[in-house]
Amino acid sequence: MTRHLHLNAFLMGVGHHEAAWRHPSAEPARLTDVRHYQNLARIAERGKLDSVFLADGLALWGNVRHNALGGLEPLTLLSALAVVTEHVGLIATVSTTYNEPFHVARKFASLDHISRGRAGWNIVTSAGEAEAHNFGIERPPHAERYARATEFLDVVGKLWDSWEDDAVLSDRAGGTYADLGKIHPIEHEGAHFSVRGPLNTSRTPQGRPLLVQAGSSEDGKDFAARHAEAVFTAQQTLGEAREFSIDLRNRLRAYGRRQEELLVLPGISPIIGSTEEEAHRLEKELEDLIIPAYGLSQLATLIGVDLKEDALDKPLPDVGVETEGAQSRRKLVVELARRERLTVRQLLSRLAGGRGHRVVAGTPEQIADELQEWFDYGAADGFNIMPPILPRGLEDFVDHVVPELQARGLFRTEYEGGTLRENYGLTRPSSRYAAEPDRELDVVVAS
Amino acid sequence: MTRHLHLNAFLMGVGHHEAAWRHPSAEPARLTDVRHYQNLARIAERGKLDSVFLADGLALWGNVRHNALGGLEPLTLLSALAVVTEHVGLIATVSTTYNEPFHVARKFASLDHISRGRAGWNIVTSAGEAEAHNFGIERPPHAERYARATEFLDVVGKLWDSWEDDAVLSDRAGGTYADLGKIHPIEHEGAHFSVRGPLNTSRTPQGRPLLVQAGSSEDGKDFAARHAEAVFTAQQTLGEAREFSIDLRNRLRAYGRRQEELLVLPGISPIIGSTEEEAHRLEKELEDLIIPAYGLSQLATLIGVDLKEDALDKPLPDVGVETEGAQSRRKLVVELARRERLTVRQLLSRLAGGRGHRVVAGTPEQIADELQEWFDYGAADGFNIMPPILPRGLEDFVDHVVPELQARGLFRTEYEGGTLRENYGLTRPSSRYAAEPDRELDVVVAS
Repeated sequence: MTRHLHLNAFLMGVGHHEAAWRHPSAEPARLTDVRHYQNLARIAERGKLDSVFLADGLALWGNVRHNALGGLEPLTLLSALAVVTEHVGLIATVSTTYNEPFHVARKFASLDHISRGRAGWNIVTSAGEAEAHNFGIERPPHAERYARATEFLDVVGKLWDSWEDDAVLSDRAGGTYADLGKIHPIEHEGAHFSVRGPLNTSRTPQGRPLLVQAGSSEDGKDFAARHAEAVFTAQQTLGEAREFSIDLRNRLRAYGRRQEELLVLPGISPIIGSTEEEAHRLEKELEDLIIPAYGLSQLATLIGVDLKEDALDKPLPDVGVETEGAQSRRKLVVELARRERLTVRQLLSRLAGGRGHRVVAGTPEQIADELQEWFDYGAADGFNIMPPILPRGLEDFVDHVVPELQARGLFRTEYEGGTLRENYGLTRPSSRYAAEPDRELDVVVAS
Repeated sequence: MTRHLHLNAFLMGVGHHEAAWRHPSAEPARLTDVRHYQNLARIAERGKLDSVFLADGLALWGNVRHNALGGLEPLTLLSALAVVTEHVGLIATVSTTYNEPFHVARKFASLDHISRGRAGWNIVTSAGEAEAHNFGIERPPHAERYARATEFLDVVGKLWDSWEDDAVLSDRAGGTYADLGKIHPIEHEGAHFSVRGPLNTSRTPQGRPLLVQAGSSEDGKDFAARHAEAVFTAQQTLGEAREFSIDLRNRLRAYGRRQEELLVLPGISPIIGSTEEEAHRLEKELEDLIIPAYGLSQLATLIGVDLKEDALDKPLPDVGVETEGAQSRRKLVVELARRERLTVRQLLSRLAGGRGHRVVAGTPEQIADELQEWFDYGAADGFNIMPPILPRGLEDFVDHVVPELQARGLFRTEYEGGTLRENYGLTRPSSRYAAEPDRELDVVVAS
């Protein structure tokens, strides 16, 4: 079988470029319009993409004075996309730091039923300080967030498995709806959580939703190696991306996992034109709409250094790259500025398209060349596509780059199956309780 | 203007009767099928009903051996219903005891955007012990749950108001997306919550979702008088329902609210036949499918007394009716058994249709007579319709009872507006921050 690459469409408001909302081809009023997102999901499905993905944060991120922020909560939105699509996977970001495992397990189980097997969870631990202040605490340290996340994953896994596949009998004549021997209390007792279970939603088409992760710190990579089935990552160069991918795969063995159980998808923002000139013209149009004050507040977020406008035409001041091993994006940004000897203004322009993700402007063939090179060279199993303007940039990718990839035999021309796991070529997990000898569930009597 | 009654369709799996799943006209396999619920929402909208409503609990409720349980989480489900309807309101149950206000405010804000103004929240404090055990705590006492709920409502109200209606400018040329003077940190500091805000979703079509409540204890009634705009309630007799409604309205003054700001909707399960005989035949069919063991476990839930099958043909043993003022449903059940001198078996049969809500079997005209009598007599502003079997029972109600109510001038023949608040004849609240002098939002810089 030919090795195919995998493509995820990263949907973000009216586009990934921070100035997209100002461009004449964007419609910022559609930020809270469900039809905008339904349209995007349908376009992704028209292109046979594996999945669509929604990022999230639990505070007003960034400077809303200069960017179109304040959209919809991903899980609530994704069921509205599920019912207008049939194949494309639906991945939502949800934090393990400010949630309870019972809620998260149940909502993803519901989405997996509603979408008939297309739910995916991008697991984040919420590094933001503003997020902590919306939940009445100080931001927990990095290691503590990951410790909680690890136990969180253990609990939700048990809850998703708590109904075996054949628990529901639906025997009307005999009056037996479910076999209580196949619905298991999980009786989890740990450092962070105590959860009795079982889940109050039956086992879902995928068994468990697809698990996605995006942390690139040491803890993040270990967490990914242990739990994740797909990894979104920001990588500026092919060499670094390849190293990252090899590093991640080398960690799999420690958790008894095989190479093919994890897919690495670097982000890329493709600025597409029918000619190189057209692509660069669009790139320039967007660049001209950048508001330096916005870029500086984003830079403060990414590297933790608050610069004023008089610093714009100087090199980036010397800042450390290691902060408790957490800020891997900070390292990437600082190294980018150093490697290419950028002024702050030049750096802001490089970050405006993808917040540290790679931005490539060119023709569909040139974009396809870039993707193919990384794919062939083992730097990627596929890509996280971040269109600069939405829906336009996704349409351009689906209508012009996808056919090019298909013509080269690199991408599917029809969906292979009906679930997100099938799109990604991953197996359906069986319930950990299925092999256990029958143990009766105490009838739960709740008021 | 003629006074119209309001109708909510209470959607519950394949029907409210506990034996519905065994009836030949039910399809229990559709319990987790989104198309089943979309069909129900469309039927409700065909009947011009005000809203549909989904109950919820955070544990496996009841005895799944003998009933079709384990369905979908309401908020995740409702956005899938929002996109196939245009007018009908969408009300989800969410607990204040096991959630954080920021999440709840945001999810309902998202649903209100997605539905273009049709979101409603049935506020519960989660009385169940099994629920507490899914969140690692012992069930908090009644008064503590209500104290938390009261502060919770305060916080979510502030978050929904935190973006003023005109905060979004979307000035592309000037580069100003939002007016930071109209987006307000809420800076809430209280006994239970510390939440900085603002919300990261812009102000919604309804301003705030409709607030619904169903507690009938003293604390519950005070909470409703303070916050609720619609109240669902279980009432067996017209006299008691009228007393309840008067009691609730009398409490409004203490919170500076007017009579017309609260609607009382008693539950009713209508068993409909084209003749009285047909209605009673269906009632008997369902009764014959009752499983006593299931009824006894439900009774244990409702009144806290665990009876064996040898008690079935004796009167209900003497049990107290007051338990920390919380179990108003227990009082209703015990009084029903006493008033009508029922054996346990007879009581179970009376509870099987609606768990203490009123069950009425008859022709469409007879059902309409019952509704009209309660409405005319001041015992109800409308009704919470609980069809015994779904979708069949909702279709019968919409196709036969609704036209009868319309012919009598008691119910709308067309929707008056596009939002849930408009369906219920309630005003749209303005933001509490709108009158305040401008105060700049510190730019929130999150990582």
